[in-house]
Parts: sequence; structure tokens; C-alpha cells
Amino acid sequence: MKNQDKMALSSKYKSLVNKPKTKRGQITLDKLIKSAEKNFLANGFYNTTINNITHDAGVGLGTFYVYFDEKLSIYKYLLSQYSYQIRKQIAINVGATKDRKEAEKIGLKSFLDYIKENPHIYHIIWESLYIDQKLFVDYYTEFANSYIVALDEAFKNGQIKKYDNEVVAYMLMGVSNFIGLRWIIFDDVKDFSKIVDEAIEVLDKGLFTDK
Amino acid sequence: MKNQDKMALSSKYKSLVNKPKTKRGQITLDKLIKSAEKNFLANGFYNTTINNITHDAGVGLGTFYVYFDEKLSIYKYLLSQYSYQIRKQIAINVGATKDRKEAEKIGLKSFLDYIKENPHIYHIIWESLYIDQKLFVDYYTEFANSYIVALDEAFKNGQIKKYDNEVVAYMLMGVSNFIGLRWIIFDDVKDFSKIVDEAIEVLDKGLFTDK
Repeated sequence: MKNQDKMALSSKYKSLVNKPKTKRGQITLDKLIKSAEKNFLANGFYNTTINNITHDAGVGLGTFYVYFDEKLSIYKYLLSQYSYQIRKQIAINVGATKDRKEAEKIGLKSFLDYIKENPHIYHIIWESLYIDQKLFVDYYTEFANSYIVALDEAFKNGQIKKYDNEVVAYMLMGVSNFIGLRWIIFDDVKDFSKIVDEAIEVLDKGLFTDK
Repeated sequence: MKNQDKMALSSKYKSLVNKPKTKRGQITLDKLIKSAEKNFLANGFYNTTINNITHDAGVGLGTFYVYFDEKLSIYKYLLSQYSYQIRKQIAINVGATKDRKEAEKIGLKSFLDYIKENPHIYHIIWESLYIDQKLFVDYYTEFANSYIVALDEAFKNGQIKKYDNEVVAYMLMGVSNFIGLRWIIFDDVKDFSKIVDEAIEVLDKGLFTDK
């Protein structure tokens, strides 16, 4: 992640959460976040009250307001955390891989690993469509924008062919999200490396014959 | 659509709706469906009552039960209608096109045209994830299965390369859904033929160079 992005992200976090200054504060914040996640997943955003969140976190109602202004803030914070964690995980695993085909393979695998560890995130992220569509749009636009930067770089280095990289970014996001749905959410397979290999082969060799 | 599929679909419909026998009955049923769609979109499934549906349809509460057993039945009926209409539209437009690349291009365009006319269907279909995840799984599994049949046929005719066609089906569904999100839901572009051409080129020529 570029420093500029990091700064943008950190200022976005800042406006959502009042970051704790002590270790104990961080533990309390983590409890609130876990509890919010659990409640949003089980009962949805609208049917979750701040009281539910603090109750399950084992803290008083007032404690919520030490960290967040309102229920929507903790929801937005969750969304930005998912986006950040997924991209961070991909970035760490892809590392300095120079080959874009290999990078996409590792990226897809990392995304699916993250979904496997956190299968609830589809539920929570897609609920944004029903809370405020702008949240949903922002979530995927931000994700796409960081993808486009990587694709532009890969094109500059001669690793991918010349396409409209925004189209490519949304195609690849669609591919990874729908593979995640099928092989993790619908049917939680143990090993999806063959699925990943197959998808990357299609993207590499192309689908159609010359007939 | 194969006769077998048609029968499966018609028996599925049958169990959800008590089909009217008169033209007037059909008009009433259409009003109920339009009203349910409008209410589910505006207020969500859970916050819509059967009373809301009949009120906005301009019919008495009892009329609902002439056609449907419960609120979930009319929701399921809507889902099966979307799935059927999308596939029918694609089948009509693709017609007897022998070339699979051309067929995929027409198919993607038809899907996007349908979304453009019915942008609310993402909202309604994806809400199934929060109503009963099985509905969501069934919706996409059914769609994928009919896609796989077409891909297997294309492979048999030598038009596509040898891949696991279930992987290909989910990839293509991901591509079309995410392109629909970006260029119709996020930003309602007038003409998406260039986007379609670009996506098909990526699928045809492949993404990566040999470097």
C-alpha cells in the first residue's frame, strides 16, 4: 500500500473511531467490534441495538460512546477493516512476486483464505446495500481502485495485455467473489487450490477456441 | 430451455402460486406481484406485510390467499421469475448463434439489458441471503447449472477449451454480475457495448503476456 493510501485510510478510520490510547482500551474496543460483528451477522444491522452490542461485549452502554458516535460508525468501521485486511493479506502474500499471473494466483488464493476464515463478511458487506447503497458502492469502488493501480503497474511492466483495467478489475473481483460464494459459502471445500489454478488458466489461455 | 427444465420450472411455479384461470385473475396476480416487488424493494422483506402488498395492489387482504400461501411464497415466486426471465431473454437473443464467443457476448449484453430495465433485482435477489441462505444458494446454483449445460455443449462442439465448466460458469456469472454493478448500479451508463466487447476480449485473448 502506498503511503498516500495509508494516510487516506488512517484518516478514514480516525473519523469513525476514537482510537484508545491504552492497552486496556484496545481490549475493550476489540470486544465491542467482535460483539457488533456477531450481532450484525445474527440479527442484521437494523435489528441490532447499541445495547445489544455493549451487553454482549460485557461493558456498559456509555462505553460505546467512548469509541463511536453511533451504530452506523461501528458498521462502517467493520467494512473498512475488512477491506483493509483483505488487501493487506493479499499484499503480504503477493510480496515481491514479479510475475503477474503468479501474483493473481496468490491474490485469489489469499482472498479465498480470508473468506474461509471469515465467511460472515459477505453477509455483513452486502448488507450495506440495504443500509446505505453509497457504502456498498464505496466499498467496491475503493477495492477496484487499488486493483487498477496494480494492473496499470503490471501493464507498464509488460506483464498483462492492453485492456481497460477498470473492466479487468471488476471482472477479477466478480470472479473471486463468485468462486468464494460457490466453494466456500455454498460448499465449504477444504482445498480450493485446483479451483484457483483452473480460474487462472482460463484468464491466461482464454476461454474460446479459434473455431 | 429443455423440456425437462421447463417441466421442473413449471412444477416449481405451481407449488408457489395458485395460477389464475381467468384474464381478470391474471391482472390481479400481476398487481400483487408488482406491489410485492415495490414493497420488498422499498422496505425489505421483513418490513413488508401482506397487508402492505394487498393495500398497494388495491385489493382486499383475502385476495392474497387466493394466489399465495404466505409472504415467502410471493418472494420465492419473484426470484424464480427473475431467473426464468433472464435466462429466457438470453436464450432468445443468443438464438441459434453457433459461435460461442459471439453467444457469450450476446448473453452478457442481454443480461446487462435486463439489469438496466430491472435494476432493483440485485436488491431483491441478494436479500435472500438474509431471509434464508438456501434461497440464495438455490438461485445461483440453478443459474450455474443451466450455464454449465451450455458450456458443455460448446466444448463438445469444439468452441471452448477444456476446463472445469463449473469454474467457468461461476467466473462468467461473477464477471456479468460485477460489470452490472459497476456500469448499471453504481453509474448508469447509456451504452455498455464497449465494456461488453472489452470483457469478451479478455476472455478470448487472455489477460497475461508471456513475460
